Amino acid sequence: MVIFTLVTLYVLGVAAARAQSSPLPSWNEGAAKSAIVEFIARVTRDGGPDFVPAAARIATFDNDGTLWCEQPLYFQAVFALDRVKTSRRSIPNGKKQQPFKAFLSGDNAELAAQGEKGALGLLAVSHGGMTTNAFATFVAEWLSEAKHPRFNRPYNTLIYQPMVELLDYLRTNGFKTFIVSGGGVEFMRVWAEKAYGIPPEQVVGSSGATQFTMGADGKPVLMKLTKVEFIDDGPGKPSGINRFIGRRPIFAFGNSDGDLQMLQWTAAGSGPRFAGIVHHTDGEREYAYDRRSKIGKLDKALDEARLRGWTVVDMKQDWKTIFPERSEEAKP
Amino acid sequence: MVIFTLVTLYVLGVAAARAQSSPLPSWNEGAAKSAIVEFIARVTRDGGPDFVPAAARIATFDNDGTLWCEQPLYFQAVFALDRVKTSRRSIPNGKKQQPFKAFLSGDNAELAAQGEKGALGLLAVSHGGMTTNAFATFVAEWLSEAKHPRFNRPYNTLIYQPMVELLDYLRTNGFKTFIVSGGGVEFMRVWAEKAYGIPPEQVVGSSGATQFTMGADGKPVLMKLTKVEFIDDGPGKPSGINRFIGRRPIFAFGNSDGDLQMLQWTAAGSGPRFAGIVHHTDGEREYAYDRRSKIGKLDKALDEARLRGWTVVDMKQDWKTIFPERSEEAKP
Repeated sequence: MVIFTLVTLYVLGVAAARAQSSPLPSWNEGAAKSAIVEFIARVTRDGGPDFVPAAARIATFDNDGTLWCEQPLYFQAVFALDRVKTSRRSIPNGKKQQPFKAFLSGDNAELAAQGEKGALGLLAVSHGGMTTNAFATFVAEWLSEAKHPRFNRPYNTLIYQPMVELLDYLRTNGFKTFIVSGGGVEFMRVWAEKAYGIPPEQVVGSSGATQFTMGADGKPVLMKLTKVEFIDDGPGKPSGINRFIGRRPIFAFGNSDGDLQMLQWTAAGSGPRFAGIVHHTDGEREYAYDRRSKIGKLDKALDEARLRGWTVVDMKQDWKTIFPERSEEAKP
Repeated sequence: MVIFTLVTLYVLGVAAARAQSSPLPSWNEGAAKSAIVEFIARVTRDGGPDFVPAAARIATFDNDGTLWCEQPLYFQAVFALDRVKTSRRSIPNGKKQQPFKAFLSGDNAELAAQGEKGALGLLAVSHGGMTTNAFATFVAEWLSEAKHPRFNRPYNTLIYQPMVELLDYLRTNGFKTFIVSGGGVEFMRVWAEKAYGIPPEQVVGSSGATQFTMGADGKPVLMKLTKVEFIDDGPGKPSGINRFIGRRPIFAFGNSDGDLQMLQWTAAGSGPRFAGIVHHTDGEREYAYDRRSKIGKLDKALDEARLRGWTVVDMKQDWKTIFPERSEEAKP
């Protein structure tokens, strides 16, 4: 027993030391990685001046463009468009009405011109008028069938490997990791736990109203209505954090101006704070865009990051790999 | 080292066995306690037919009347009334307007007659128009000063000792415990962690809208508006659970008709389910009320509980003690 115990301790010790010595293997050495590693070391050093108790180690991450790819179109929008295609019968006035007419006829210029109103119309048809269970099934089916036009991979495999490692590394260090996304909370929960290790109750997002309804069989269901209830974007993100989490994060990561207020809210707390931005600089392996992009526009937040000394991740320089190895995809 | 290890294991083993052998010390032996203990044993028995993985062990509790006392008036309403007294200057039209006129003149009949509209008016003045930080400070100050008219104790000490033990027992068995209350989420978070061991991110409740605002000093604040954003009561509870937690509980406890839909939603899931109701039957040690009470009315849910075989806790019979010992109060 003594020998067994000693061997076990030795093995565990070596493993722990190894894990400590090379965190974040998909990150190149550089300012971004150093800033992350040093921050985490600082707040977890028991007895140190910047020690933060585990309960207060709240880390929040935007999703689109921060944890997974968002180009050439937000993946949830692709899902909504695909839903409209496969459920034409439920479209009011069928093909004649915009934005469906433009979408079904392939008129992308007209579709883009429909703007937010068009998006909400699509959302209503694709996300409302069904039970929460039916919706989750639609999302799961779509993920198993749809492929990204450029990478030819299922959308939920286009997550950023370096960020998955960062989430793991934070949790290993006692952090509780949350998604705080403009995306729909019920859309994300279907796949977020497997992709990121983030359970449903730690996903904060935009949401539509639901209605409790007793079914004919005496079993209750929750119907998804077409009414938008909460938009978790821009200034809505600190409100969402306050409402769902109830504590101010000490660590936050985003990639666009829609994350600016979450980063400001995080950075303005007392004690040590980390605010990070993923800057999409890699047109070859992923996409390169910032100030002029319609999707994931990064302009004011980039200026503020430089002004305040926030950590800006240069995707091209800082990341060894972008997406998980293809073999990962095959896993159920 | 061997001896040390063996002694440690022995001590730990004895402690574990002791904890196992007498859970829920403030519960009398009986049907309610047995139902709880047997359910928890069933879903945690690894390899057993009803085993539920830890991640799915979600337990939700109503607060008012289930975890703490709610008579003679919801404690949050007492807080709101006290706030109005101490901040008269912020009342629109001062003392002349209802429900403030009735309240300030001590006209309880008129105050009751104001009903929901009156309550919302009180809520707006007492809960809105300040930062989230200022509100939390008001709640903490009130708790340190105000005392319950009958028990002469601070309101946050009037929690039910048997339920506190149940929460602990569930967590010891791998459950994640949530509050799902009609009460205000920001009101509860101030004291819920100390009272129940439930952290802010596991408190679901009604909420008002907040607005992200950049202060003159360049530091952002969240302003509490007077607009009610979400009512987490009745059919709103399953919606709240869906939205905040994203999984269906396997264990839920309530005490009134406002909890009926949460209990139905919980009970209707597949696999083993526990639905419990605290029945206030003890006018001597606490209060006795059910079908005719204005506060915490228990009528339909009591019928449904009997029909479906849910566990109904008879406070007088099932609980050895109601509130924690007075010595507990003195703790900071």
